[in-house]
Amino acid sequence: MSENISFLGLGLMGTALASSLLAAGHHVTVWNRTPSKAEPLVAEGAVYADTPDKAVGASTLVIVCLLDHASVTQTLDGTPLAGRAVVNLTNGRPVEARQTADWVAERGGDYLGGGIMAVPPMIAKPGALILYSGSRTIYDRYEPVLSVVAEPRFTGADPESAPLLDMAMLTGMYGQIAGFLEAAALVRSAGLPLRDFVATLLTPWLNAMVAQQATWVDSFESGDHSTEVSNLEINRAGLENLVRTFREQGVKPDLLLPLKTVIDQRTARGLGNEGLSGLIEEL
Amino acid sequence: MSENISFLGLGLMGTALASSLLAAGHHVTVWNRTPSKAEPLVAEGAVYADTPDKAVGASTLVIVCLLDHASVTQTLDGTPLAGRAVVNLTNGRPVEARQTADWVAERGGDYLGGGIMAVPPMIAKPGALILYSGSRTIYDRYEPVLSVVAEPRFTGADPESAPLLDMAMLTGMYGQIAGFLEAAALVRSAGLPLRDFVATLLTPWLNAMVAQQATWVDSFESGDHSTEVSNLEINRAGLENLVRTFREQGVKPDLLLPLKTVIDQRTARGLGNEGLSGLIEEL
Repeated sequence: MSENISFLGLGLMGTALASSLLAAGHHVTVWNRTPSKAEPLVAEGAVYADTPDKAVGASTLVIVCLLDHASVTQTLDGTPLAGRAVVNLTNGRPVEARQTADWVAERGGDYLGGGIMAVPPMIAKPGALILYSGSRTIYDRYEPVLSVVAEPRFTGADPESAPLLDMAMLTGMYGQIAGFLEAAALVRSAGLPLRDFVATLLTPWLNAMVAQQATWVDSFESGDHSTEVSNLEINRAGLENLVRTFREQGVKPDLLLPLKTVIDQRTARGLGNEGLSGLIEEL
Repeated sequence: MSENISFLGLGLMGTALASSLLAAGHHVTVWNRTPSKAEPLVAEGAVYADTPDKAVGASTLVIVCLLDHASVTQTLDGTPLAGRAVVNLTNGRPVEARQTADWVAERGGDYLGGGIMAVPPMIAKPGALILYSGSRTIYDRYEPVLSVVAEPRFTGADPESAPLLDMAMLTGMYGQIAGFLEAAALVRSAGLPLRDFVATLLTPWLNAMVAQQATWVDSFESGDHSTEVSNLEINRAGLENLVRTFREQGVKPDLLLPLKTVIDQRTARGLGNEGLSGLIEEL
């Protein structure tokens, strides 16, 4: 079914999103602070609204993708939000999502926030995911529209859920990136073939290790961090050897050091026979 | 073909390795400093040698799995190494592997070192991997034996290669663990369902992100770290938001902070428009 959609905010991400909605046959009204950025979308069939007020007025479904939450409330201030479904795909912290959701509700709008787990070129392609939280009504009513731009996932009525889970996924990614960079630097320092290492050793190993870490959820939930195989003492010795090797190879192990610090800290509490899952209690 | 193998060092790992060789029908002579640890293996058909000298003398293939490299040279000192194939599966740094290889060569032995990418319960099961480096002659001659305990991979004639690649794989794993622990702590702080997050969001996401990081090898090799999608400035802003969210949730972001420091550092050099791959140059 073809829907009327208003789209505010045409940066790289906003343009990719709006473009995919047009390609799917929806009627899209667009607004952007710098009007010239709307031109490619108008060429694809979008209608240009020259004020946020007109843009919001044009559709029941209003999607915003702006720089930050402050820009969202500034842009939507005074527009006819009452009775409309506001889908906010703007990046932000959980507390900001809650504030914006409250702000929209005070003006009679219904709020659904989304955290985009993709970069613009991935939009409307397999692998792109958007986490939503807030109004289940909006999610259920517009799921076909949301499914156009990325695989949608409703994570709860609390508007804080989606941005928090978004950030937790990014957190996991940043840790993995830190390890990847250090590993690559070490292999490069020895003049060993990096491409082969990454493709045939590191990648399958990391995929196997994620599955291993997933089993720690039992320990996180029970608080029982005992282990049969790889306790903190063993990992402490391993990390010590590792850090020495980095220094011998002339590579800075900086990105790994805080893990070592936390292991030292927990071991100093006499918990060196616990597994790595126990480190969560130090964070 | 059934081989004569001498095995020195019967800790948890050594016992698992020797046991799998016995199960595969090889003639295994074992030695351990504490003789009682040999009893289960003797019950499985091993012959016990009461000195390292007798153990080494019993077979052409001598496998050692001891606490550290110092224990290896101490244990093998004065034994009849000349003409024998020494496979050293003892944990250690690349420089230690080189020293032990030289020490064995000086005594007329041939040396192959191995880095075990598995915990004892994984031995002789799918997924266990051992990286080898040193004598290609030993590797080729005994590949069927090595294949019993774990998938073997020859990584080069330099005895430093296997321990270095071993450590690089552990480095990648430790980074991933750090990110996983922080992500889990954040989700737990919000009272959101952790098991569901790990299984349906974090795990597939991390597997997809490893594939993304693998593409950085081109940049590592060319030194061209330009990017179209996610530059350091964007990641800097993202990490700042992330760290604020951790503080708002009462979770310590300590394991992520050095990545932020390195991004700040590189951005301060005026390279904020580069991609994350450029961070390798700061390590």
